[in-house]
Amino acid sequence: MDYSIYLSGEIHSDWREQIESGIKESGLDITIYSPVTHHESSDEVGVKILGEEEKPFWKDHKAAKINAIRTNTLIQRSDVVVVRFGEKYKQWNAAFDAGIAIGLGIPLIVMHDPALTHPLKEIDGAAMAVTETPQQVVEILKYISR
Amino acid sequence: MDYSIYLSGEIHSDWREQIESGIKESGLDITIYSPVTHHESSDEVGVKILGEEEKPFWKDHKAAKINAIRTNTLIQRSDVVVVRFGEKYKQWNAAFDAGIAIGLGIPLIVMHDPALTHPLKEIDGAAMAVTETPQQVVEILKYISR
Amino acid sequence: MDYSIYLSGEIHSDWREQIESGIKESGLDITIYSPVTHHESSDEVGVKILGEEEKPFWKDHKAAKINAIRTNTLIQRSDVVVVRFGEKYKQWNAAFDAGIAIGLGIPLIVMHDPALTHPLKEIDGAAMAVTETPQQVVEILKYISR
Amino acid sequence: MDYSIYLSGEIHSDWREQIESGIKESGLDITIYSPVTHHESSDEVGVKILGEEEKPFWKDHKAAKINAIRTNTLIQRSDVVVVRFGEKYKQWNAAFDAGIAIGLGIPLIVMHDPALTHPLKEIDGAAMAVTETPQQVVEILKYISR
Amino acid sequence: MDYSIYLSGEIHSDWREQIESGIKESGLDITIYSPVTHHESSDEVGVKILGEEEKPFWKDHKAAKINAIRTNTLIQRSDVVVVRFGEKYKQWNAAFDAGIAIGLGIPLIVMHDPALTHPLKEIDGAAMAVTETPQQVVEILKYISR
Amino acid sequence: MDYSIYLSGEIHSDWREQIESGIKESGLDITIYSPVTHHESSDEVGVKILGEEEKPFWKDHKAAKINAIRTNTLIQRSDVVVVRFGEKYKQWNAAFDAGIAIGLGIPLIVMHDPALTHPLKEIDGAAMAVTETPQQVVEILKYISR
Amino acid sequence: MDYSIYLSGEIHSDWREQIESGIKESGLDITIYSPVTHHESSDEVGVKILGEEEKPFWKDHKAAKINAIRTNTLIQRSDVVVVRFGEKYKQWNAAFDAGIAIGLGIPLIVMHDPALTHPLKEIDGAAMAVTETPQQVVEILKYISR
Amino acid sequence: MDYSIYLSGEIHSDWREQIESGIKESGLDITIYSPVTHHESSDEVGVKILGEEEKPFWKDHKAAKINAIRTNTLIQRSDVVVVRFGEKYKQWNAAFDAGIAIGLGIPLIVMHDPALTHPLKEIDGAAMAVTETPQQVVEILKYISR
Repeated sequence: MDYSIYLSGEIHSDWREQIESGIKESGLDITIYSPVTHHESSDEVGVKILGEEEKPFWKDHKAAKINAIRTNTLIQRSDVVVVRFGEKYKQWNAAFDAGIAIGLGIPLIVMHDPALTHPLKEIDGAAMAVTETPQQVVEILKYISR
Repeated sequence: MDYSIYLSGEIHSDWREQIESGIKESGLDITIYSPVTHHESSDEVGVKILGEEEKPFWKDHKAAKINAIRTNTLIQRSDVVVVRFGEKYKQWNAAFDAGIAIGLGIPLIVMHDPALTHPLKEIDGAAMAVTETPQQVVEILKYISR
Repeated sequence: MDYSIYLSGEIHSDWREQIESGIKESGLDITIYSPVTHHESSDEVGVKILGEEEKPFWKDHKAAKINAIRTNTLIQRSDVVVVRFGEKYKQWNAAFDAGIAIGLGIPLIVMHDPALTHPLKEIDGAAMAVTETPQQVVEILKYISR
Repeated sequence: MDYSIYLSGEIHSDWREQIESGIKESGLDITIYSPVTHHESSDEVGVKILGEEEKPFWKDHKAAKINAIRTNTLIQRSDVVVVRFGEKYKQWNAAFDAGIAIGLGIPLIVMHDPALTHPLKEIDGAAMAVTETPQQVVEILKYISR
Repeated sequence: MDYSIYLSGEIHSDWREQIESGIKESGLDITIYSPVTHHESSDEVGVKILGEEEKPFWKDHKAAKINAIRTNTLIQRSDVVVVRFGEKYKQWNAAFDAGIAIGLGIPLIVMHDPALTHPLKEIDGAAMAVTETPQQVVEILKYISR
Repeated sequence: MDYSIYLSGEIHSDWREQIESGIKESGLDITIYSPVTHHESSDEVGVKILGEEEKPFWKDHKAAKINAIRTNTLIQRSDVVVVRFGEKYKQWNAAFDAGIAIGLGIPLIVMHDPALTHPLKEIDGAAMAVTETPQQVVEILKYISR
Repeated sequence: MDYSIYLSGEIHSDWREQIESGIKESGLDITIYSPVTHHESSDEVGVKILGEEEKPFWKDHKAAKINAIRTNTLIQRSDVVVVRFGEKYKQWNAAFDAGIAIGLGIPLIVMHDPALTHPLKEIDGAAMAVTETPQQVVEILKYISR
Repeated sequence: MDYSIYLSGEIHSDWREQIESGIKESGLDITIYSPVTHHESSDEVGVKILGEEEKPFWKDHKAAKINAIRTNTLIQRSDVVVVRFGEKYKQWNAAFDAGIAIGLGIPLIVMHDPALTHPLKEIDGAAMAVTETPQQVVEILKYISR
């Protein structure tokens, strides 16, 4: 059974790599999609390609839209969207991706520390599984790939 | 011109009331939808109706799903979704609602302090207007209602 | 807040009437849709209108399709589908309606005795609320109608 | 002509294997999808991966949702959903899958003993073919693959 | 229970009037849509409004498209499409409307003499009811309106 | 028969008023939607409500998006989109609206001078009627409203 | 450029073979889908696989539905549906397939003798090309494959 | 990461070739779709295949529809639609394609000289990126392909 998954959220830990290596070790037939996770490239892409902006708002705007071409295309191609919430930062883009997945009818797996349960309850409530570790995500993928 | 709008996000300031009174004063034909904004009712609704839970996760889960019946139905009925991000709290549910709106193809108006521009860039990038005050939202509604 | 709900499932108890009178007492603005719950009419409608059949299969077939014109139209109009599983009979049509609602993206509320939890786990898992009594359904409707 | 089919329902007889070997013998180009048919794995998957639950309801809930990731993804990929109702158990999940297929607009083939005709009339009425044996399903697949 | 129905097909008998008066007598809350049934107006509308054509093909083309604005809009608004096949003429437009309804997922009721069963088998096979008389259609509408 | 129509395109002649008065005189039950046709308001709305911009690009950007909230909502509500191309200006927004209508599956009526036939051939080819005068549009609306 | 096309309609001439050999000779990358064109197999398939019926109506019904599994699946997979109307028979199933294609938003090419223009005007009006010969269809396919 | 892109608009400069060679040089896995860009073939295709027309309107009409079979199929297959507006001609078909992409929910990249900003503001406002050169488009494709 082949699946495509999109890994959204936290870019400051190696959770994507852990899922990726877990998938490889288990020999699963899974295509992994991600956003561009190099922070600076992602922030600068708009002005770098389309020209400088004085206002930070428009700089961010141009970057966000180029990133969205990739992000939305890959979310729509995925069978499952996995969203990881870390300890730091606002991470509104992670919650936003989770919402897009639900709006499109694509199943969601969430990963976060139990300490975040209350503020994430709406997203957890819409998810097919709420995990804490990359290993649990890999176990789910192994199970649905049998 | 009649419209239906959904007001998502911050529940600790009176921005909804300001939009509502601005709409009334301008005599606009706009139906306003909101989530249940009484914090405690919203948190307790699951266990209160469906029975107690020992684990906070399941307490939140039951509440989140009952709230989602209302939330998702009203978002789908709306012509425009307005999402307000305040100073406090994680507000992941606000970002989640913004994502649902985009996933469903419903236009988005965002409202937040310019200080939040960078962490909200993906959501701002998907929005039809980025505002700072309820008055600006009312002005937009007046304009599109002419 | 107005909603439309479809009440599917068990036709041998008065759960529909209890929901209906709970809605009336609470003054909710809710339109209630149901299948034709008169068992004999429902079974005989095909041959009665379209002509006799010797084989019970075709008799059932004609009846099922005429009932489906009503059933499917009303499910599609509803904001919420409530499905009640009783003690008796196979009730595959109730589970079938629940599936149609999920396939169409319409939120589901299930009602059944806890004794039925295990065989109903897939349907409960897809539901926004799992209730045991008509009163709980009314409470949910009251909450989402505030 | 290639097709993808999903085989839903009864897990206590070898009807899936019979269809599979019929397809092989006939050299048809058909991809077969199924749920996880190992009963215990399917029941235990939620607590095994995501952690123990005291209440059977939540144990079932976690399992049902993980299974649904697989089930719903594969149903959506299929050209035809085949649902088999056996003699035993409630089999509400089989009827639920049939409903999901119909809600999604995917053609349905049903397989059951004629003794079950009356309680299955709604599902039979929505089906493109009502069969009694795996051989009949294979014959249909052969015919539509010519 | 209110419904909207579209009456497609034969324009040389009074079957529409019979359905309409049956609906009135039964006090049903049903909105009836029809194509323009005045043959000459329907054939001439294109050249009359948009200018003469020498080739009959373009004359028909212009008329067909203006009629399709009405036809397709009303079919899409309908809960049920009723298609009547008479004795005379090719009536390909009736079969075409039946196909549009099926392509859009709208339930179909067919009305024709049993003599036409074989050439209409594909359309009958897709229909929720195959009737012979306007009275049967009215009976179905009465039943689903209870 | 009631319809909703959206009148897109040229804002420098009185074609909308002519259609409107033709509809009134004929007593048709037609809701008319339009963009904001006051040129200056439409151009200035972004900076006026959301704050000044130095670059003309962003000034236009903000205005275009606020106008799009109205435009896209009303196009989606319409049964028919009428697009008028005049003698002057680029009128790419008119062609853009025509494309949006086609992408959404909404029937299109085009109005323009025969001199523009060649550059408008793709849009004319997708339209249900190609007219030259407001009177012809009114005649079509009268015909489909009979 | 690869395309998939579905060839619907007349089964008593060799128009499908002519298109097929034209495609081969031109080296086009086109997948051709067709219904089962062996008349007797198609008529008998229902009773042959699913069991005898006394009434011709149910015999036809069973056959029509099995054929529809193939037909509808392949139409939905196609980029273009080509429908040929011949001289003989009612050919309502051809018009029905044309309607399904239009209801699904799939472009239509029609092929028929000019003598049939008037009764086919609605279908011609919805088509992207009206041809008279298989060669013209091949020419169109060659053009769109450049 | 593989993508499919559709290049719409100007046919009198080599911008398509520049994007194509940029993609090749960068080794990107991108499928490029285009309309038939040979002006005369595109204009003549209708009458050449389907027969002469006296009126230029019908000549254009036949050509536009055959071209639309290709155009619309390929736009629907694309992940991104790139539309280039040049200095000359009306280019309404470019704006029309942009609208179709937006109506279908496909992300848009626009390319034009800054001098055209004002008349293109609605299209720019709906785009994910507004570029001036083929190189910028290639840079975006490189970035989203990382």
